[in-house]
Amino acid sequence: MLTLYFAPGSSSMAVHIALHEIGVPFAGRPLSFKNDLRAPAFLTLNPEGKVPVLMIDGRPLTEVAAILFYLAKRFPDADLLPRDDAEAEAQALSWMSFIASTLHPARQRGLDYAKEVYGIADRRLGGGWALGRYSIADIHLFRLYWRLANSLHPAPETFPNLTAHYQRMMARPAVQRTIEVETAIGYELPA
Amino acid sequence: MLTLYFAPGSSSMAVHIALHEIGVPFAGRPLSFKNDLRAPAFLTLNPEGKVPVLMIDGRPLTEVAAILFYLAKRFPDADLLPRDDAEAEAQALSWMSFIASTLHPARQRGLDYAKEVYGIADRRLGGGWALGRYSIADIHLFRLYWRLANSLHPAPETFPNLTAHYQRMMARPAVQRTIEVETAIGYELPA
Repeated sequence: MLTLYFAPGSSSMAVHIALHEIGVPFAGRPLSFKNDLRAPAFLTLNPEGKVPVLMIDGRPLTEVAAILFYLAKRFPDADLLPRDDAEAEAQALSWMSFIASTLHPARQRGLDYAKEVYGIADRRLGGGWALGRYSIADIHLFRLYWRLANSLHPAPETFPNLTAHYQRMMARPAVQRTIEVETAIGYELPA
Repeated sequence: MLTLYFAPGSSSMAVHIALHEIGVPFAGRPLSFKNDLRAPAFLTLNPEGKVPVLMIDGRPLTEVAAILFYLAKRFPDADLLPRDDAEAEAQALSWMSFIASTLHPARQRGLDYAKEVYGIADRRLGGGWALGRYSIADIHLFRLYWRLANSLHPAPETFPNLTAHYQRMMARPAVQRTIEVETAIGYELPA
């Protein structure tokens, strides 16, 4: 049994998309970004007070990259990671570590820095998918650029590869379904 | 052929330790934290200008968590990850994502915040290894606490589990060898 604790519009959106890509049944537990994350009951699941948390038969798993990796490995038919290829898996993890530890906090360090690191991401991505084929790394990358696109509204030519990637992602039914559900619950974009 | 680009005393120390744990031959390329990381030749390997970079037969792999994962999977006899257990692998990735994106930048957000998140790490760790058995997550966690212990010098009772973990790690030959090599090259602790 899988239960996803998520806050609409937050980082947990990446896991939400992956669950829709896989098509596995799960229980969704929407939380308010402003209030619920510091509630004692939630802090017992994640002492950091952060979403996403995926409960796997009652056991909590935290951190976007870890949950995406788990889902891709447990549901290989969804083809969200290359199979039996440690180096390709490591390249997916390299992308997701860069996304979480460099892209995610970039805006706190100012616009110039954000432009620099998103530029690095744009050139690393090139014209296709992050690993040269669709994977969990694309889902994670999309969530970050989705937030940027809906807050700072960069011109498409500023990050041409990220813009094209964003448009390909937005056309996917799993992405459309996730945004539809999270918009219906309602959210404010987190910082 | 494996080549490690590293800067003594920096985050790359974790990968350096793992290579010594495994005992695989590798070429070490020490770089100066202050100068070499912005050199054009290095930026072609990692446009972020960060160590570690592991070259695998000429192909660059970046990010500590990704490189540790790759090494553990490629050299399973070193027993640095549980085998054939996607959930245990995901828990290792959860630890390493937390370490890279929360513990690593914590000091920039002030002492109170650092104390809070290292306290979370201390309680999550408990009295043993991060996964209940030795793994790459312990190596990554050790590097962060090693930096804290050698700069802020917290009292042992502030983080009792991290202190005991640090002492168990310091007793390992792979850790001793890494510190010996990196000290011989010479370093200043990065911020």
